[in-house]
Amino acid sequence: MSRPTIDHRGPEFAELTHRLLDGVRRVFRTRHDVFVYPASGSGAWEAAIVNTLSPGDTVLAFEQGFFAQGWVKVALGFGIDVRVEPWDARRGLTAEAVATVLAADEARRIRAVIVVHNETSTGVTTDVEAIGRAMRASGHPALLFVDAVSSLAVTDLQHDAWDIDVTVTGSQKGLMLPPGLSLVAAGPRAMDAQETATLPRSYWDWTRQREFNARGAFPYTPATNLLFGLEEALAMLEEEGLEAVFARHDRYSRAARAAVQAWGLEVFARDAAESSRAVTAVLTPDGHDADRLRALILERFDMSLGTGLGPYKGRLFRIGHLGDFNDLSLVGTLGGVEMGLRLAGVPYEPGGVDAAMEVLAS
Amino acid sequence: MSRPTIDHRGPEFAELTHRLLDGVRRVFRTRHDVFVYPASGSGAWEAAIVNTLSPGDTVLAFEQGFFAQGWVKVALGFGIDVRVEPWDARRGLTAEAVATVLAADEARRIRAVIVVHNETSTGVTTDVEAIGRAMRASGHPALLFVDAVSSLAVTDLQHDAWDIDVTVTGSQKGLMLPPGLSLVAAGPRAMDAQETATLPRSYWDWTRQREFNARGAFPYTPATNLLFGLEEALAMLEEEGLEAVFARHDRYSRAARAAVQAWGLEVFARDAAESSRAVTAVLTPDGHDADRLRALILERFDMSLGTGLGPYKGRLFRIGHLGDFNDLSLVGTLGGVEMGLRLAGVPYEPGGVDAAMEVLAS
Amino acid sequence: MSRPTIDHRGPEFAELTHRLLDGVRRVFRTRHDVFVYPASGSGAWEAAIVNTLSPGDTVLAFEQGFFAQGWVKVALGFGIDVRVEPWDARRGLTAEAVATVLAADEARRIRAVIVVHNETSTGVTTDVEAIGRAMRASGHPALLFVDAVSSLAVTDLQHDAWDIDVTVTGSQKGLMLPPGLSLVAAGPRAMDAQETATLPRSYWDWTRQREFNARGAFPYTPATNLLFGLEEALAMLEEEGLEAVFARHDRYSRAARAAVQAWGLEVFARDAAESSRAVTAVLTPDGHDADRLRALILERFDMSLGTGLGPYKGRLFRIGHLGDFNDLSLVGTLGGVEMGLRLAGVPYEPGGVDAAMEVLAS
Amino acid sequence: MSRPTIDHRGPEFAELTHRLLDGVRRVFRTRHDVFVYPASGSGAWEAAIVNTLSPGDTVLAFEQGFFAQGWVKVALGFGIDVRVEPWDARRGLTAEAVATVLAADEARRIRAVIVVHNETSTGVTTDVEAIGRAMRASGHPALLFVDAVSSLAVTDLQHDAWDIDVTVTGSQKGLMLPPGLSLVAAGPRAMDAQETATLPRSYWDWTRQREFNARGAFPYTPATNLLFGLEEALAMLEEEGLEAVFARHDRYSRAARAAVQAWGLEVFARDAAESSRAVTAVLTPDGHDADRLRALILERFDMSLGTGLGPYKGRLFRIGHLGDFNDLSLVGTLGGVEMGLRLAGVPYEPGGVDAAMEVLAS
Repeated sequence: MSRPTIDHRGPEFAELTHRLLDGVRRVFRTRHDVFVYPASGSGAWEAAIVNTLSPGDTVLAFEQGFFAQGWVKVALGFGIDVRVEPWDARRGLTAEAVATVLAADEARRIRAVIVVHNETSTGVTTDVEAIGRAMRASGHPALLFVDAVSSLAVTDLQHDAWDIDVTVTGSQKGLMLPPGLSLVAAGPRAMDAQETATLPRSYWDWTRQREFNARGAFPYTPATNLLFGLEEALAMLEEEGLEAVFARHDRYSRAARAAVQAWGLEVFARDAAESSRAVTAVLTPDGHDADRLRALILERFDMSLGTGLGPYKGRLFRIGHLGDFNDLSLVGTLGGVEMGLRLAGVPYEPGGVDAAMEVLAS
Repeated sequence: MSRPTIDHRGPEFAELTHRLLDGVRRVFRTRHDVFVYPASGSGAWEAAIVNTLSPGDTVLAFEQGFFAQGWVKVALGFGIDVRVEPWDARRGLTAEAVATVLAADEARRIRAVIVVHNETSTGVTTDVEAIGRAMRASGHPALLFVDAVSSLAVTDLQHDAWDIDVTVTGSQKGLMLPPGLSLVAAGPRAMDAQETATLPRSYWDWTRQREFNARGAFPYTPATNLLFGLEEALAMLEEEGLEAVFARHDRYSRAARAAVQAWGLEVFARDAAESSRAVTAVLTPDGHDADRLRALILERFDMSLGTGLGPYKGRLFRIGHLGDFNDLSLVGTLGGVEMGLRLAGVPYEPGGVDAAMEVLAS
Repeated sequence: MSRPTIDHRGPEFAELTHRLLDGVRRVFRTRHDVFVYPASGSGAWEAAIVNTLSPGDTVLAFEQGFFAQGWVKVALGFGIDVRVEPWDARRGLTAEAVATVLAADEARRIRAVIVVHNETSTGVTTDVEAIGRAMRASGHPALLFVDAVSSLAVTDLQHDAWDIDVTVTGSQKGLMLPPGLSLVAAGPRAMDAQETATLPRSYWDWTRQREFNARGAFPYTPATNLLFGLEEALAMLEEEGLEAVFARHDRYSRAARAAVQAWGLEVFARDAAESSRAVTAVLTPDGHDADRLRALILERFDMSLGTGLGPYKGRLFRIGHLGDFNDLSLVGTLGGVEMGLRLAGVPYEPGGVDAAMEVLAS
Repeated sequence: MSRPTIDHRGPEFAELTHRLLDGVRRVFRTRHDVFVYPASGSGAWEAAIVNTLSPGDTVLAFEQGFFAQGWVKVALGFGIDVRVEPWDARRGLTAEAVATVLAADEARRIRAVIVVHNETSTGVTTDVEAIGRAMRASGHPALLFVDAVSSLAVTDLQHDAWDIDVTVTGSQKGLMLPPGLSLVAAGPRAMDAQETATLPRSYWDWTRQREFNARGAFPYTPATNLLFGLEEALAMLEEEGLEAVFARHDRYSRAARAAVQAWGLEVFARDAAESSRAVTAVLTPDGHDADRLRALILERFDMSLGTGLGPYKGRLFRIGHLGDFNDLSLVGTLGGVEMGLRLAGVPYEPGGVDAAMEVLAS
């Protein structure tokens, strides 16, 4: 990423653009449109909404967690009527839950369903494939919006095969880049929705992007240095192979859960199969402030754990294990947690690191 | 910028945020609000509009050039009624022209005036200070929006003293960074306008940013590595001193114009005093395609000149001389142009580099 | 280190040279001469010899290990009569052993004693302070040469207070730089020895270096980029404080030994107090090839352990824990070893990482 | 070069070593031995001497300039009897001059002839090919030593075809790396000379290097990061092609001389064909201190020119134009000199940059 910035209107740049967009398509597993913005991931949430919806449209969401709520807030800011269904945040959203609401929507008012694939704030993963299948089976025309910020290039996600309409992500998780890019995959139904969507849009407008992208350009000054980094990240993913990348994160996730279980602590996700491959969220015992533990670990071991967000503030901490990470990084990370638990006086059983090594070495 | 990405929710990051925003205020010469987005400069255009205007509002703009038109298009996309007055793009916009239109607007329909300080596409600079003074003198309540993408940290700009309401810029010009950040200064009248502005907004929303910024945070994942670069860029500007930075760019600009004059070519700006300190736009003689010249110079000397945009495509080329640049870079740049003119068979008089050196060495 | 190379004959460079040499003196704890060469550490061995000795001189050394032997070989190459005394490489060299030989040298033939402070190949540390004291107490005029390649800026070493005559090191261990610089401290007796030393010398000549250094220059083109790195490394050491640096490496060393003990394996150093703070050497049980274990760990966990050198090839592996390293790096490293032992079928008891964490967290 | 340092005893490193040495052979145009040391270029001078000569041997050199003298001093330091013949430093050494001395050496006492290919201090190039031919024609067995520090990868040099026995260079000129590596090519006669050469040697010893190199290793800790840089530099040279590299430097050299001529100043080399392709040395008129001019240019334009060395201190300055350099860098460089001449009040004619552009654009 330290290469000199090249002329973003020149021929060399056009070739880079085409190469990058093809690579992004392969990661999203789509043959359709993809867009790359200089923006944070929340910009991609906004892009999904302003390109497909009109004020007063109804959108369905569930209480999956902090980031689901973040997308809901953006929608509300655009005058969308968001119907937020209650949901146990410790469980992955089920196809059944979605299907039930859609079945009841006889007037077909719901224009889109917001689903977070890996809810980073809770470490809970949802079976998006099942939801996509159920939605199509229902015959309901609602679009499926998926937040893949911490799942793309971490765990399996197939934009086309799973009938997703809009998938959004950022550069700083599975793509191993600094933050600063947001990426969107938009299927044909989402692209068509632009024609009737009346929300005003300019920066996020897909039609204009598509026109510029077709000739290898962007409708704004692109963040060239992050694009150079993206090229490198895509090459690294292709070299390792997406299946191997997924298997690696799955192993990290199993090892982290084994450690938590050995400590006698509770993983936030009720069902192991639904615990995120990117981040493991751990509840601290009652009366033990997770943020005090996090502060101690930062101070003592220079390691930054994720905080509990929203209602879980002080109640859980999150162990990230994604991106440019290996087995020994995980052992070191879990060692930092285990020593932190001890130093903070949180009741726990030793042996977490041992349990993780058992998984990693088998 | 190659430092590891730090935790953007931690205490170290909060201090960085406060330090950066203070530094950005000093560069904009404002005591009021400043905002930094992970976005291109055109995102800042959108921020100005969605935070202060409502659908159907009237905005005044002039035919200053490609980037003025870009901001107009964004406004149109948001249902703003933009009144674009004709203007000779080879001249800096005058206070008189603005005052005349405002005086005729007895119904006070015009909510904002869009002015590009340095129109990068034409290399023409406008006296924004005079426009600010005239607007206040007129008693007309329209807000003053200024595009300072290629003027901030290149030539004098004083957000507060000149009564500007919204100034926007990007990271990739005077701030010498890769593209990827957009920066906005918003005065009190602009901040107040949010209360009545009904355009939907989320990503660009100033109120939310201000709340997060107050505690050293951002309402999204910030582009930390670009922020590290911004800290370094601000330090470099403070070390050199803004006045010295302005004087340096003024010298480059005079030297470049001296070269153009010696070549017997025409600077696009009709009045030398209005030629941009960031970029010198040069007309090629009739029958000589500027883009052919640019392609030859790129091929032969690996130097990328700016192209003519919009109506000036093929008719002019632009010599940038801003940011991390010195006297000898300019001599090399002008040498590349002079040799390119010769090789392309464009009629010119030799001696351009000599004339520039005469300016630089005096 | 990625800064542009500056003119090594200019004034800016002269200031850098003076600053660096002062910093190097502080790390060696000497007020006397220090020299920095673009060379590997073995170049510094040669510098010690050619500046102080004459062909046919006698030098005393002990069978401390591979690197002691390396220095001996260099001496032999220069026609020095090296007397190598047997020594149990698993023990730190004692003052008594040195004193006994010197006492027997009534003819005062021995001109220098070669001592390796931290024998990197065996992970055994010698009490150099005691040897220096004993040598002075003996009244024998032999010079004391100390190899501090893996001890400087890792564990306490005081060139002046311990009466060392020549201390040599390289850039790639405690100084945390890439290899490519060798550093020497030479006390007054060593400098005086040049006058009678008849070995030919040019590149390594101290008198010429001292003359050039006095005016901030070098008698050759210096490796400027490594010197920039050295400046940064010295600043990091001063910020942390040498005492804190030593304490940190001592903690790593105790933790690593605790792990080895828990595994039921044997640390090569017989006495814990003599185990190196930079590297812990571990014997594999008979019949278990240490290099096979190392290869497996490299393949499976992408971690490179040190090999057994010379007679210990295949019999031991070495765990480095020096330089830019922290508690969690050590936990990860030991985890890699523990998992490797398991996968390689080396008999061991689990619990090594736990034992190390016990040390690190207390 | 910012890649992490890899294990220099591992298999990945061995492959790198073989690849690098093959590439270095191609640049030296030799099928024989090449050696790479962590050292400055003067270390390579020492390597040539200690591997091939014995105390009291006679070596022939000429008063070519500062660097020729440098090599002579190294030889003297090793007890070599150096016969330095007078020579006009403003002319390239001739085959005739060498042949005359050798012809007179009926006793065949001269063991080696030291020739500097591009004397960097004077900007004078010598026809090494003619000297090699003349030496072989003479039947005299003296070895031919060539300093190619500023000629390798700048101008044609063929170690084998020109019958050179030892060619030495450094990393920081044509190889475009930071200083810190020295490189040597040694032909069969030079390798054989080791058997009888009695000078002591260790660090520079070729036989030991050859043994280690044969298995992809080095007899010391190699400067891995510079080796990574060397790999990249070799790839860049191969991509451009050595012939193209030579042609490019020839063009720079002609352009620089055209500028000097236009200024009415004198190139130090009397014959244009002998002016170095790497650096153009320029005499300042009597009464005008070249170092004052250099200081002014450094202060005013942040450009560092080479100083006059030895007898030419204050009398000449040197314009480097080698390595990672292009046409516009040269125009900027010459512009800095031309403006500096003016500001320093050195009498000159304007038009130097114009004359250089005439060459570059034709």
